[in-house]
Amino acid sequence: MSNKVHVGSTEMEEGLRNKKWKVLEPSEKIKKIPKRLWDVGKEDPRRVIHALKVGISLTLVSLLYLMEPLFKDIGSNAIWAVMTVVVVLEFSAGATLCKGLNRGLGTLIAGSLAFFIEFVANDSGKVLRAIFIGTAVFIIGAAATYIRFIPYIKKNYDYGVVIFLLTFNLITVSSYRVDSVITIAHDRFYTIAIGCGICLFMSLLVFPIWSGEDLHKTTVGKLQGLSRSIEACVSEYFEEKEKETSDSKDRIYEGYQAVLDSKSIDETLALYANWEPRHTRRCHRFPCQQYVKVGAVLRQFGYTVVALHGCLQTEIQTPRSVRALFKDPCVRLAGEVCKALSELADSISNHRHCSPEILSDHLHVALQDLNSAIKSQPKLFLGSNLHRHNNKHQNAVSQRNRANDVSNKTTETGSRQGQSGAVSLSSFRTDTSALMEYRRSFKNNNRSETTSAAGERRMLRPQLSKIAVMTSLEFSEALPFAAFASLLVEMVARLDNVIEEVEELGRIACFKEYDNTRDPTADDVRCEKPANVVISVGAAE
Amino acid sequence: MSNKVHVGSTEMEEGLRNKKWKVLEPSEKIKKIPKRLWDVGKEDPRRVIHALKVGISLTLVSLLYLMEPLFKDIGSNAIWAVMTVVVVLEFSAGATLCKGLNRGLGTLIAGSLAFFIEFVANDSGKVLRAIFIGTAVFIIGAAATYIRFIPYIKKNYDYGVVIFLLTFNLITVSSYRVDSVITIAHDRFYTIAIGCGICLFMSLLVFPIWSGEDLHKTTVGKLQGLSRSIEACVSEYFEEKEKETSDSKDRIYEGYQAVLDSKSIDETLALYANWEPRHTRRCHRFPCQQYVKVGAVLRQFGYTVVALHGCLQTEIQTPRSVRALFKDPCVRLAGEVCKALSELADSISNHRHCSPEILSDHLHVALQDLNSAIKSQPKLFLGSNLHRHNNKHQNAVSQRNRANDVSNKTTETGSRQGQSGAVSLSSFRTDTSALMEYRRSFKNNNRSETTSAAGERRMLRPQLSKIAVMTSLEFSEALPFAAFASLLVEMVARLDNVIEEVEELGRIACFKEYDNTRDPTADDVRCEKPANVVISVGAAE
Repeated sequence: MSNKVHVGSTEMEEGLRNKKWKVLEPSEKIKKIPKRLWDVGKEDPRRVIHALKVGISLTLVSLLYLMEPLFKDIGSNAIWAVMTVVVVLEFSAGATLCKGLNRGLGTLIAGSLAFFIEFVANDSGKVLRAIFIGTAVFIIGAAATYIRFIPYIKKNYDYGVVIFLLTFNLITVSSYRVDSVITIAHDRFYTIAIGCGICLFMSLLVFPIWSGEDLHKTTVGKLQGLSRSIEACVSEYFEEKEKETSDSKDRIYEGYQAVLDSKSIDETLALYANWEPRHTRRCHRFPCQQYVKVGAVLRQFGYTVVALHGCLQTEIQTPRSVRALFKDPCVRLAGEVCKALSELADSISNHRHCSPEILSDHLHVALQDLNSAIKSQPKLFLGSNLHRHNNKHQNAVSQRNRANDVSNKTTETGSRQGQSGAVSLSSFRTDTSALMEYRRSFKNNNRSETTSAAGERRMLRPQLSKIAVMTSLEFSEALPFAAFASLLVEMVARLDNVIEEVEELGRIACFKEYDNTRDPTADDVRCEKPANVVISVGAAE
Repeated sequence: MSNKVHVGSTEMEEGLRNKKWKVLEPSEKIKKIPKRLWDVGKEDPRRVIHALKVGISLTLVSLLYLMEPLFKDIGSNAIWAVMTVVVVLEFSAGATLCKGLNRGLGTLIAGSLAFFIEFVANDSGKVLRAIFIGTAVFIIGAAATYIRFIPYIKKNYDYGVVIFLLTFNLITVSSYRVDSVITIAHDRFYTIAIGCGICLFMSLLVFPIWSGEDLHKTTVGKLQGLSRSIEACVSEYFEEKEKETSDSKDRIYEGYQAVLDSKSIDETLALYANWEPRHTRRCHRFPCQQYVKVGAVLRQFGYTVVALHGCLQTEIQTPRSVRALFKDPCVRLAGEVCKALSELADSISNHRHCSPEILSDHLHVALQDLNSAIKSQPKLFLGSNLHRHNNKHQNAVSQRNRANDVSNKTTETGSRQGQSGAVSLSSFRTDTSALMEYRRSFKNNNRSETTSAAGERRMLRPQLSKIAVMTSLEFSEALPFAAFASLLVEMVARLDNVIEEVEELGRIACFKEYDNTRDPTADDVRCEKPANVVISVGAAE
């Protein structure tokens, strides 16, 4: 069995790709550049649009310089408009607004402060004034830098503070040499406003890219990824032959990796989305903080998926014949979890509430099925069952029939499965002989009623426990399966949290009501696969 | 048992804190500001130093303006020096270098390109020239923006491309109106060089802050945090009374949370560290990529710790009396893992190689102990043992004695533990009566040699299995413990990866050789606790 643990393979792959890139000959590198450039645009065509938008904005703002009548009014200060466009125009509307408003605010506050300082320093002599300005620059510089370390400021106004510092220094220092600072500041503000105007126009009205929508889509994508991951994980765990398919491994890994690393991306998108104006008619405000919360519970959910994936790769493995015994309830439970995740993804994607009954009812049934399958499986650890069926004969007999059934089934499974199947097969033979013995002793007991009830019980139990012994597993072998099942159960508990947060999201974002008339068909389509599973589970029981 | 899952509580807490902050009255907010400011400095005193450094740099650069002789030479272009200091001087030396070099490179390339375009456009007429410049601005603007989306460029040269775009536009556009572009560019480059010089002096020579050291320290901190987390987790799992201590929960959570969210921080620190010159005599180059790799395997390790923590909080819990049976080997294994993690942390922290023998030997012994404890524990699932001791009497007898021992011990544990103890106690009584019966039948068997060997075996086994049955658990109850044990085992597998990467780090970073003469004592101190555990394990078996 494989001892490998799948450690950060995507990161490794990335490193590998970089290494490959470094190893390439320079000529090959140049040959590959067009492909790389093409890939970047293919991944997200909005990038091309954004690049064109920046080009157009820059050309527009350059017209201030290039066209005679415009230049007459504005003059060389037009350079500030160019600067503003380069620095402020960002990929998404929210980011542009955030930067633009930060820049505006920073400039305004810095300007006011600089004028105040100039006003105070105005009457003093030249040397005193220089000292005063120098001190002010030191204090304001140190204070502004220190303030940037406050998490709240760092998160929301970092760029604003930088611009504040920049503008303050420019105005204060140049005011020492130039007298018409007010005119300069006025012109500068004017041109910066033109630059900001172009940026806002471009980002809000020409093919706008909303961070909020990205956040929305990535959340849906994460739910779907987790669902795919779990499905692939469970199907690989219960596959009949052990095969190292890097394909399914990648499918599992890709599904959850995006979730695990989503924290900083989510927070950035939420930050920008926070600045975006309402762009849908649906809701008062984009609930970006709720999306971040959903992201947090999804990450917690993702950690369980990672652990589940780990079960496929540990050293000690439960024999596949034993796994097969629990396949149906496990696959069913996982199927229900996947269905719930898909339903949540659909609900967010279509901006409608999810139907909580569908989610929890099927899930709890599947959960109970798994629980009872584990409890009632006499092949493993019959002891606990015997404990219960201790007192009555007929119970013991039904138990015997059941054990017989199961061991029969095991041979079927076993014969399908090569090496480990051979073990089950031999145990089945011992089984039947044990049962024969049991029947004989049972008849004997019935004939001679003289033996005490205690003695009878003593004779009864051994045979059953013998059956258990013959077919029982070592605990250390059952261990990994127990971990697998336990993680599946824990997954359901965490799913509850996810459902809760998504419902809260639906409330805050004013999702549409769940549409009963339309969904049943959609649900039927989705149900198709799990429905099959239900049938096969029924047949197995 | 508690159904709660610890979902992103730190994030929730952060949200709560923000909410609290928002709820506060404005007057209270103002009162709390000084405390917040103080906390920021207390958390990391280097922040205060950095703020002062920025203040000093700004004052220095302002002198270019404020002092008559300096101003005569440089003139109003001094403003670019001020700008450079504000924008380039960052918290760590690596970040400053990265930004400074990016700025320098961007400016140089943009300048050359702008001159080339001016050279081409020079001879044409005014209108044609305007069109040519406009087109160039559009194409370069769009292309540069598009290039920023390439991951490699985005990671390393994003700021450089922005500065390139900025400078290119400034020079190209202003060259249309001003003839002496070369002089302007020359002066500008000169002042930017002065600004960069001040920044580099301040960040490299005055109380330098190295990203590489931060990366080093956070890696050590992560190892220690994981170690604390595991220790707290295991000690809570095996605590005799269930108590909801938010204290230990926080301790567990804090330990691993920093690891889980470390990806972006690690990568940023590594990026900056990459730019830093060699600042130790030890190594040729700071192995920042290896630190990122260690971070990746630690994250993988952390996911297992999260799953382990999840075991404390699932709905179905293994009874504490049963957990107590496996306490010693589990605590010992966890102790060994913690010891290994601490050893790794020490080794990185002291720049020395770790001793691989100490790490793996003890670990494997502990692992085997847990394995054999699980296998040999006749209280749970005796079947597998019976299977082995099927053939000989003396084996069965020793088995009986052992079972007796264990059940005796269980009553001790049980009587200490209230409710669940009552169950064990009653089972112990049934146990002893079963043993009495067993002895009687054993004597009987010895007296009447007429019974066949098969029948004898049949008589022997039942009693033993009865003992097992009386005290056996339901599989569904054993499930969570199995998951816990399985995760502990998986943790060891993942620890292997961590050790591997740390050893690789040691090789690349030219760590000192492992010092045998000094470490044994240190090891003794560290071993103290596990040593005690070993003794108690011995007593238990």
